[in-house]
Amino acid sequence: MNGADSLLRTLVDSGVEVCFANPGTSEMHFVAALDGEPRMRPVLTLFEGVATGAADGYARMAGRPAATLLHLGPGLGNGLANLHNARRAGTPLVCVVGDHATDHAPLDAPLQSDIAAVAGSVSGWVRHSASPAAVGADAADAVAAARRGQVATLVLPADVSWGAGGRAAAPVAAPAPDRVDPDALTAAARALRGGEPAVLLIGGDATRADGLAAANRVAAATGARLLAETFPTRLERGAGVAPVARLAYLGDAARHQLGGARHLVLVGTRSPVTFFGYPGRDGDLVPDGCAVHPVGGPPARALAELADLLAPGTSAGVAAQRRPDLPTGELTVATAAAVVGALLPEGAIVVDEAITSGLGLPDATAGAPRHDWLTLTGGAIGYGLPAATGAAVACPDRPVWCLQADGSAMYTISALWTHAREGLDVTTVIYHNSAYAILRMELAAVGARGGAGGTASAGLFDLGRPELDFTALARGMGVPAVRVRTAEELAAALRRADAEPGPHLVEAMLPAVA
Amino acid sequence: MNGADSLLRTLVDSGVEVCFANPGTSEMHFVAALDGEPRMRPVLTLFEGVATGAADGYARMAGRPAATLLHLGPGLGNGLANLHNARRAGTPLVCVVGDHATDHAPLDAPLQSDIAAVAGSVSGWVRHSASPAAVGADAADAVAAARRGQVATLVLPADVSWGAGGRAAAPVAAPAPDRVDPDALTAAARALRGGEPAVLLIGGDATRADGLAAANRVAAATGARLLAETFPTRLERGAGVAPVARLAYLGDAARHQLGGARHLVLVGTRSPVTFFGYPGRDGDLVPDGCAVHPVGGPPARALAELADLLAPGTSAGVAAQRRPDLPTGELTVATAAAVVGALLPEGAIVVDEAITSGLGLPDATAGAPRHDWLTLTGGAIGYGLPAATGAAVACPDRPVWCLQADGSAMYTISALWTHAREGLDVTTVIYHNSAYAILRMELAAVGARGGAGGTASAGLFDLGRPELDFTALARGMGVPAVRVRTAEELAAALRRADAEPGPHLVEAMLPAVA
Repeated sequence: MNGADSLLRTLVDSGVEVCFANPGTSEMHFVAALDGEPRMRPVLTLFEGVATGAADGYARMAGRPAATLLHLGPGLGNGLANLHNARRAGTPLVCVVGDHATDHAPLDAPLQSDIAAVAGSVSGWVRHSASPAAVGADAADAVAAARRGQVATLVLPADVSWGAGGRAAAPVAAPAPDRVDPDALTAAARALRGGEPAVLLIGGDATRADGLAAANRVAAATGARLLAETFPTRLERGAGVAPVARLAYLGDAARHQLGGARHLVLVGTRSPVTFFGYPGRDGDLVPDGCAVHPVGGPPARALAELADLLAPGTSAGVAAQRRPDLPTGELTVATAAAVVGALLPEGAIVVDEAITSGLGLPDATAGAPRHDWLTLTGGAIGYGLPAATGAAVACPDRPVWCLQADGSAMYTISALWTHAREGLDVTTVIYHNSAYAILRMELAAVGARGGAGGTASAGLFDLGRPELDFTALARGMGVPAVRVRTAEELAAALRRADAEPGPHLVEAMLPAVA
Repeated sequence: MNGADSLLRTLVDSGVEVCFANPGTSEMHFVAALDGEPRMRPVLTLFEGVATGAADGYARMAGRPAATLLHLGPGLGNGLANLHNARRAGTPLVCVVGDHATDHAPLDAPLQSDIAAVAGSVSGWVRHSASPAAVGADAADAVAAARRGQVATLVLPADVSWGAGGRAAAPVAAPAPDRVDPDALTAAARALRGGEPAVLLIGGDATRADGLAAANRVAAATGARLLAETFPTRLERGAGVAPVARLAYLGDAARHQLGGARHLVLVGTRSPVTFFGYPGRDGDLVPDGCAVHPVGGPPARALAELADLLAPGTSAGVAAQRRPDLPTGELTVATAAAVVGALLPEGAIVVDEAITSGLGLPDATAGAPRHDWLTLTGGAIGYGLPAATGAAVACPDRPVWCLQADGSAMYTISALWTHAREGLDVTTVIYHNSAYAILRMELAAVGARGGAGGTASAGLFDLGRPELDFTALARGMGVPAVRVRTAEELAAALRRADAEPGPHLVEAMLPAVA
């Protein structure tokens, strides 16, 4: 077997069974080897950012890594933004980047570039595979590294792929999970039961059902305020799940949520900071005089141990099923959220890149049937449509609702083609407000003059000239689409999409943001 | 004035008058400052790869740099592939990348990443601006660095933008051009007139009219074979221009062109290598026993000096105007090329990313009216539509024809929206063959089994499931579009596009590549 054969066999034996691919010449032997390894499912994307975002969405839902197959440095560059999001999500992901043959690299051919430098910016593990005999073991190491919750990048020279002498490697045992630090646990428990105002801020797998239940028990027993990080990797929620509010994106709102706390216990997340820096404002959200207590180790387990200590014998309250009434009339951010809340199906996976148009969604869906909510962990827009691709591949029996802002959708719009190609059950709602609305808000938040009166600056937030037609874009890529202008039309379109298999796109025309 | 004001004023004073932008929060003060600097034209793109490719196309035609405005590390990542092409083209380009405020960066907020590492992979010059007082001078240095024919990346922290005390800087004098190395010139001249078989291979500004005339005089006087590099940055050609053939992309064809040469004189280009490495094949295209004679310094000037030495008093033959007849019937790669050759307007700028569908174009257009031809210098696909954007902004009085393969078009398809928004006179021809046809060819070239029989591998080259509809995509972004299936329809569509101002897209349905 050649190197590519051994690589594929090792990946599959190690539990990596999907490869989101956008290959080029240097990856042709990997591609050919797919014909001999039917256990690996290749999923073609038309742009590398779709492949990397899909691998992120896949792993968040499957709980194990997918591979990506990217072409040299420029292909990696195209995939970088969604690898950044994956890094911030703690997603396990095996990123295979084809490279020139070993003896071709020194010739500095046109596509030669510094792959390692770029890969290092998003990867917790990078290796340049040296020989066909080594690549199997490299792949097993890559999977093990990825399973630690990071991007593992394996740079694969073409001659390592095509050379003879490949040897498939056995899976490398998953690393033993870190232990919960008992001293940190004790300190956190002391802080929480000390009677002073405390906040319990959670992330990682603590935002899954078990972690949420434990966290709610701790909060109920101690009076601590419970919050999830602003952008959780995967938040389980809805009827029957212990609820949690998220730390606000806007600094002032977040400061309000944390205000007066004397203790901040962190489980599975880092000390909170604002997304951006603003003139004259402190980016550190920890209130003055508040002690921070990080608890290391597996987050859900840490919460379980905290609950055993602080709330023995209790059980968590869970959200009741309670949907908003279906609204009528004008389509607004609020009515669109209510429609989603009224209709979100049981077991849905929501991929949320709705940005300002999604402000009403958390409340409107809090009592919907149980579902998962995936968010923009790293702030690099263009994640929604790709992540929905991967989530749908991971969970073919669950409906995926991709709630997507218009501006952000355009970064990786070709994901729609993969939705159609793979027949994925993804319903995309485009929130069409014809603006980079968040930037209008941020322009004011940073205290910049201009904007309101200035045509040059205002023009850079305006997506309405010309007006985008997402139904045409969707149909151009094989996805049935409809444009809706009222709450009733949105509801009808979502019901229709839900009733039919395969992908759909609903373009929700919101009032243009002035 | 704040830092952003001083940055903008300095850029404009230094001759940078267009900024291709896709900003985010950290760039809001740069955006606001645009309202106070009407000499800077901001051009909004919906994806950073469009901004960087546009800046490349702009500079190739304008002969001076544009700026890009990108948002943090992920924005730079999205722009990286076309910065790679710009680097390989030797394009002057000022890449402004907004960063977190200086005191925000250590907080490791979600969008924090290693910008310098990524920027270094494509930039000849990188600087992190330290203060509002310094950024003006930094900008002047960046423009001077860019003018040396490279990407100059200025990382601009938000507080450097918003802080008071900005000072506009005077332009930094353009660096004196390197001299032509007299010893190298002498050696090259001796090789060319020695009577042994010789090849003169040219690139850089030697593929503009003056350089081509000099090169043709040298070739005619010495019997040397004249070739341009495979992917010239800007090739002037057509009736009245001294002609040149390009070194072939395929290794065997290139070896044939260079075969038997005992001397290879390089002016403005590097020693030729194959694009990729192939099993058992040497990537170095220099024939055995052939001496290589690189001539440093400004390429066109070097050729002028060589012509003075070797061909004094001669003048160059130029291409005659000679168009193909308009073909009829089936649309094929050949007939489509003939239609382009028959109709290409005077003064056109051709942006060529037609890949395998463009094989007939060089011959069919050799006798068209004088025009410029821009090519995929770095091999990172997704360059065509963005580069056409920039070329049209640089040369509003010239028609731009973007000859674009279908697969590559999808990487940066949102450039069409900017075509419409800016009313650019770009006519895009999409060569729709429903495949990554070049990869089918490359699969065979690397000697990989699979492909023909293997469904997994074959599937990764197939763009026909579902079929893309580029007319729907174009209309969704405000560009009038038509699909054509015969040579006559293509001719009619191109004539119509040429007669109407503003952008058009013509989807040329070619036989699907099996």
